[in-house]
Amino acid sequence: MSKATLAIIAAVSAATGAAATAALYSSRKDSTPTPSASPTSTTPTAPRAPSPVTPATPTRTPLTHPVDPSGLFQYGFPGPTADLRTHPSLTLSYDRRTRNPHWVAEHITPASLAASNADRRHSVFVEDTSIPEPFRAKLKDYFRSGYDRGHQVPAADAKWSQEAMDSTFVLSNMCPQVGEGFNRDYWAHLEDFCRRLTHRYPSVRIVTGPLYLPKRDSDGKWRVSYEVVGSPPNVSVPTHFYKVVFGEDGRTGGEVAVGAFVLPNAHIDNAKPLAEFEVPVEAVERASGLEFAKLLPAQRRKRLCREVDCSILVKEYGDRQKSFGRQQGGQGGRGLPSSS
Amino acid sequence: MSKATLAIIAAVSAATGAAATAALYSSRKDSTPTPSASPTSTTPTAPRAPSPVTPATPTRTPLTHPVDPSGLFQYGFPGPTADLRTHPSLTLSYDRRTRNPHWVAEHITPASLAASNADRRHSVFVEDTSIPEPFRAKLKDYFRSGYDRGHQVPAADAKWSQEAMDSTFVLSNMCPQVGEGFNRDYWAHLEDFCRRLTHRYPSVRIVTGPLYLPKRDSDGKWRVSYEVVGSPPNVSVPTHFYKVVFGEDGRTGGEVAVGAFVLPNAHIDNAKPLAEFEVPVEAVERASGLEFAKLLPAQRRKRLCREVDCSILVKEYGDRQKSFGRQQGGQGGRGLPSSS
Repeated sequence: MSKATLAIIAAVSAATGAAATAALYSSRKDSTPTPSASPTSTTPTAPRAPSPVTPATPTRTPLTHPVDPSGLFQYGFPGPTADLRTHPSLTLSYDRRTRNPHWVAEHITPASLAASNADRRHSVFVEDTSIPEPFRAKLKDYFRSGYDRGHQVPAADAKWSQEAMDSTFVLSNMCPQVGEGFNRDYWAHLEDFCRRLTHRYPSVRIVTGPLYLPKRDSDGKWRVSYEVVGSPPNVSVPTHFYKVVFGEDGRTGGEVAVGAFVLPNAHIDNAKPLAEFEVPVEAVERASGLEFAKLLPAQRRKRLCREVDCSILVKEYGDRQKSFGRQQGGQGGRGLPSSS
Repeated sequence: MSKATLAIIAAVSAATGAAATAALYSSRKDSTPTPSASPTSTTPTAPRAPSPVTPATPTRTPLTHPVDPSGLFQYGFPGPTADLRTHPSLTLSYDRRTRNPHWVAEHITPASLAASNADRRHSVFVEDTSIPEPFRAKLKDYFRSGYDRGHQVPAADAKWSQEAMDSTFVLSNMCPQVGEGFNRDYWAHLEDFCRRLTHRYPSVRIVTGPLYLPKRDSDGKWRVSYEVVGSPPNVSVPTHFYKVVFGEDGRTGGEVAVGAFVLPNAHIDNAKPLAEFEVPVEAVERASGLEFAKLLPAQRRKRLCREVDCSILVKEYGDRQKSFGRQQGGQGGRGLPSSS
């Protein structure tokens, strides 16, 4: 298991320790009124200053306060605006600070993968012009950056229509990814593993996105460090990527097999078992600030890698690209039982 | 002007260049249908797979599509959730990934600063228990971290009630800040400068927050690098902090003097002029992914540092803490005209 993986798992398992530490501070906290519900508030003696502006927002502080912090919203809400975009093949939330998505969600089924109505040679990479220019990832940022424009939802998952495939080529579905050894190799094998899950599950959902994880330096301190590509620097290069996978049994309220994987944005030896990159979903949540299974009841939830053999099937990139259409639905993965 | 400041200014002024580059790609883009409005979409030949779940979200893709990416939301919306918190003295948006605020907004007036109904010795630092535990900054994260629990809205701006001051001590109003030479020195002088603006403007709004800026390494590449404190690592240490300041003339629809400052989270020599840290508001927007003056018409907008002398008034930290109440409203800053 990689050091980074260990670090985020440590962060999760430390929750128990955190509870103990919280107890240390609880007497202090208990003796302090919470800021928003203090029973000891004093009425300000200062006269209310004349409000220089017309109230523009419904969330105003009471008039007994001499100031109005939310009055800032007269100049516009600062954000962050997590631009939500829905395309035929994917739904995503865009991060205006890193110029990468927060997450991209997709849905694949045996039928959607069996269809072959699109050719990636007809798709071209395009900027997402729906994102305001100052926050937009640009084609020129990737140009000669040394990184691939790495699909979060892969083109090969959207062969059911050219429009669907085209919509995977928008830059808001991309992050800078290491090409050789990662995007074109191990990461592609992971994408293939996800597709092969449709042999077992009639409906598979995948959420993919970037992470910016700290690592421990020689001085013992944890630091996040990542490149920003473009001139001027614009698009952040994630240190890691995650996939959270849901294998659905096809019944309303049925069982859902959930698995999460975190891979470094780096060359990965194909000999490394996929299981080494499996992490608790909670580890991805803690690292990303997101939540993936909040509304999924525990009794419906199964652990994916207990239900199926989580392993990659190594094929050469060129072969895979060429033969993907023919192989889909016709070839069971190594160790992954085929439902057909 | 510091290198980092230059970098973000470069990012802003490069917008013109970006437009030219976009033109290079425009023929390519024009020949490609935009993903969401392609006139060449093919109807998928694959039969619609049975939906395994009851639709739970109003934003569904049309039924002609074989898949439903937004169906993920049945397990909960992933976020990001930018927790918005309103307190008497401040309004903030919390970043669950960095465990710091995105921004904290405050409002000060001559009257609110003249009031003195609170004592910071009665306030204690508290965790923001309204933030879910996995995403919460903890007191123990700061303990022995080497960094101050740096107020974004300063306690001294909320003397008008003990409740108001207490609400500045919640950890969601904090970021890890370098103490000596920054939080207790130059940064405090900047806070003082903001307060002195009430001698000129009857209403002053200040938005404060962290930045994570790249710097150019010796290999010519731009990298963001920051420490994460806590064990396990939990709270990000920003590389810089910004303040966006609005001096309001007190008239509805009146003039607003806007200034923005970006300071490194590091020791800063008191001899450095504040003007060296002034940046265009757009530079803070680009770096933070936020927007601060979207709804402020250009004709109402003035440049703060043309209206007043943007300079700090150096006082020793201990003296300032002791005498702050007495001095407020009674002493004009060096070069800053007093309205009284």
